[in-house]
Amino acid sequence: MGERRSVLSRRDFLSAGAAASAYVWIPQPVKGYSASDLRAVTADDVVKPGVSKWDLDTPALCLDLDAMEQNIATMQATLSRNGLPSRPHAKTHKCAAIAKYQLATGSIGICCAKLSEAEALSRQGIDRILMTTSIPAPAKIRRAMQLRKVNPQFIQAVDEEQNLRDLSAAAKEAGVIADVVIDVAVGTRSGIPAGDDALALAKLADTLPHLKLRGLLSYDGGVQHVKGFAARKARALKTIEVNAETCAAMKKAGLNVEIFSGGGTGTYNVMHLVPGFSDIQAGSYLFMDMQYLAIGSEDGDEVFKDFAPSLTVTTTVLNNRFPGRLTTDAGTKALTLNKPSPRVIGEPGMDYTAGSDEFGQIRFEQAVKTYKIGDKLEVIVPHCDPVVNLYDQVYGIRKDRVEVVWPITARGKSQ
Amino acid sequence: MGERRSVLSRRDFLSAGAAASAYVWIPQPVKGYSASDLRAVTADDVVKPGVSKWDLDTPALCLDLDAMEQNIATMQATLSRNGLPSRPHAKTHKCAAIAKYQLATGSIGICCAKLSEAEALSRQGIDRILMTTSIPAPAKIRRAMQLRKVNPQFIQAVDEEQNLRDLSAAAKEAGVIADVVIDVAVGTRSGIPAGDDALALAKLADTLPHLKLRGLLSYDGGVQHVKGFAARKARALKTIEVNAETCAAMKKAGLNVEIFSGGGTGTYNVMHLVPGFSDIQAGSYLFMDMQYLAIGSEDGDEVFKDFAPSLTVTTTVLNNRFPGRLTTDAGTKALTLNKPSPRVIGEPGMDYTAGSDEFGQIRFEQAVKTYKIGDKLEVIVPHCDPVVNLYDQVYGIRKDRVEVVWPITARGKSQ
Repeated sequence: MGERRSVLSRRDFLSAGAAASAYVWIPQPVKGYSASDLRAVTADDVVKPGVSKWDLDTPALCLDLDAMEQNIATMQATLSRNGLPSRPHAKTHKCAAIAKYQLATGSIGICCAKLSEAEALSRQGIDRILMTTSIPAPAKIRRAMQLRKVNPQFIQAVDEEQNLRDLSAAAKEAGVIADVVIDVAVGTRSGIPAGDDALALAKLADTLPHLKLRGLLSYDGGVQHVKGFAARKARALKTIEVNAETCAAMKKAGLNVEIFSGGGTGTYNVMHLVPGFSDIQAGSYLFMDMQYLAIGSEDGDEVFKDFAPSLTVTTTVLNNRFPGRLTTDAGTKALTLNKPSPRVIGEPGMDYTAGSDEFGQIRFEQAVKTYKIGDKLEVIVPHCDPVVNLYDQVYGIRKDRVEVVWPITARGKSQ
Repeated sequence: MGERRSVLSRRDFLSAGAAASAYVWIPQPVKGYSASDLRAVTADDVVKPGVSKWDLDTPALCLDLDAMEQNIATMQATLSRNGLPSRPHAKTHKCAAIAKYQLATGSIGICCAKLSEAEALSRQGIDRILMTTSIPAPAKIRRAMQLRKVNPQFIQAVDEEQNLRDLSAAAKEAGVIADVVIDVAVGTRSGIPAGDDALALAKLADTLPHLKLRGLLSYDGGVQHVKGFAARKARALKTIEVNAETCAAMKKAGLNVEIFSGGGTGTYNVMHLVPGFSDIQAGSYLFMDMQYLAIGSEDGDEVFKDFAPSLTVTTTVLNNRFPGRLTTDAGTKALTLNKPSPRVIGEPGMDYTAGSDEFGQIRFEQAVKTYKIGDKLEVIVPHCDPVVNLYDQVYGIRKDRVEVVWPITARGKSQ
C-alpha cells in the first residue's frame, strides 16, 4: 500500500499547485517496455490477463484489486468492531463479480436502486438483494414479484399505501410472500416521512396478505458529503432521530423490525450509535473518488483516508503543443461532469477538466515530467457511481497488470 | 409538426415561471388508456412495436421519428441551397440505423470521434467513415488500417509528423493506401495550428508512401454555442480565416484538397461562406437539446428554431408529498449533469435538476396539472451526445407509439 497511499497524502491531494514531492507516484515502464511499447493497445475489445495497465486502449476504467480488497477488509473490520453488518449498495459498482466478492467477505446482502439493476444482477446469481427504491408502477411491481419468485431473499422497499396494496396483489398473483421494508424519508427526496404516517404504513404492511414486514430503511443522502467528521457525525445523528423514534414506535407496536438499514461511506463509522440500526448500505468505499476524498477523516485530516482510491481511468495525451496545456482522450463520456475534477495521479500541479464530450483538458504551471503526444496519464474519478455506469467493463488490476476483466453487469440499468 | 413546434415557442421556452399557455403540449392518453394503464411497463428489455411511449419503463430514451426526419430534411435542403453536402458526426447518435438513414437521405459520409466508435459502426455496415480525431498510438493506428482494409472509404485525420509516419508504416503493413486529412486546429484542443506547420504536414502526407492526401478538417467546437446568430456567424468566419488561408496554400502548392470539412449545428448555415469549404459535420441537428435551443436563430429569435427537439427522456414521479416539489426516477445516470437543465415538456413552470445519481428533482410554483406518484413526464435532454451515450437503446416513436427499437451501436465506445 506504500506507493498507493502516497496518492492520498494530504500534501499531494491538497496542494494542487505544489511541486512534485518525493511521494509522488509516477508510472514506470514494466518489464523494460519502452515508452513506445507502452503506447501499444490490444485488439478491439480483447484484453488478455497479464497485459500492463499502460497497454490498455484508453480511456480504460481500471480497478486496483489490492486497494479494493483492502477497502472491503477495512469496512468489514470497522463494522465488526461496531457490531453492525454491511449490506453494500450495488448501484455504485453494478458488477456481479464485485457483489459476489462482497457477499463472500461477510456482507449480509446487497442493495439495488433500480429494478432493472436488481434483475440484471439476479440473472448473474446474486440472491440477497434489497431494493431501496419504491416501484410505483403496478406492472413493474409485478416484475419485482417475478424476481422474488426466483429469489426468495429479495426484499422490496415501499413508501406509499397504494404501492403497498399493489405489492400485496402482485405477491398474491405471483404466489409468493413479499418481504417489505418501509422507506422512511430523510429529507424530501424519497420515502414516507417519519412519524405517524410511516407507522401507519408499517402497520398496514403487517396486516395485508402476502406481505412480510421486515423493518425500515432510512438513507440520508445529503449528509454523506458533509465536510469534517464532527459536523458530519452531528448532522447524521440529528437527522436520523425521528426515524429512530419511528423504528422504536414500530417495535413498541409489536411490528417486526429486523431491519433498520442505511448509512453510507461518509457515515459508516457513525450509524452504529443510532438505536436499533441494523446494517450499513455504503457503496463508494470500495472505489473512493474525489468527492469522498474531500469529506475529511475522523482524526481531523481534511482528506478522507479510511479507504484508498482504487478506481481510476487511464487516458492518452492527444495534444501537447501549448505551454501549460494538454488535451487528452477522456472527456465527459469517460469521466462525467461531476466535481471535484478528476485528479491526475503523480501530478499535483495539474488541473483536469472533463467538460468536453470527447476530450479532457489539462492546465498546469509545473509538471513532474514533459509529456509527449501518445503518453498516458491516470486519474482518480470525480464520482464513482456515474463513471462506472459509462463503461461496459472494468479492468481488475494487480501490481499494474490486468488480472481480470469484469463486465459492468447492470450498466445503463437506470430503470 | 404543429403540437411539436409549440414546444419550441419562445414564450414556452423562455418563461420558465410563466403559467401554462394554450400552446403547451400535454401528453394525452392514447386509445383511451387510463392513467393507471399508462403506468404499465413492458417486460424486462422487451418492447413490442405499437406500444405507447407512455407505457415504456422509465427512464426511456425516446426519439420522435417525424421530428428527426424533418430535421434531416431541413438540414439537407439548406445545405443543398448553399451548395454543400453533409457529413454528419456520428458521435452524437452512435447508432448504425440512424447513420444508414443519414446516408440514405443524401449525406456523403459520416464522421466518428473515436476509433472504437468507427469500428462498431463499421461492423454494422457503415462504410463512408471519416475519423476526425488523430490516433497517436502506433498499435491503434494499425487497428485503423485494419478497418481501412475492409472499408476502402475510410478516411483518417492526422495532426503530427510522427503520427503521419506511423500511419504510412501501418498502411504499408496492411497493404492499403490510407486516405488522410490534416486536422488543422481551431483553438487549442486538437489539431496542428494553421499556417506553415499545417502546410508542411500536408506536403509530407503527399510525399509519404501508402498515403493519399484528401484535404483538411477544421472543426470549431467553441463557436457552436455562441448565443445570437450574428455573433456566432462573425466569430465562426473570423476564426476560420487562417484555416481557409492554409487550405488555399495547400491548393496553391498543388496538393489535393477535395475535403475542407467542419461546421456544426450552430454554424451549418454559415460555413458555405468560407472559401473552399467542402462539407458540414453537424451532429446534434437531428436530436436538438437544451444547449442548442438556447443559441438563437438567424431571424433574431432567442430560441434556435431551425430544428425541433426530437430526443426526450420519459420519467416517473416517485414522490409528490411536498408542495412545489416532485422527485422522479431520472437523475444523472439518465440525463447527465449538463446545463441548461432538462426541460419538462408541457410544464413551463417546472425547474428540473438531475444532480442526484438515481433521482430527478423538480421544483415549481405552478404546474399545469396535479401529479400523482406513478405519473409520467417527458423532458428535453440537456445535451444530446452524452445522454445518448448512457442508453443501450433508443425507442423510435411515431405519433406517441413505438415504431422501432434501435441499439446504440457504439455506446460507451469512447476509446
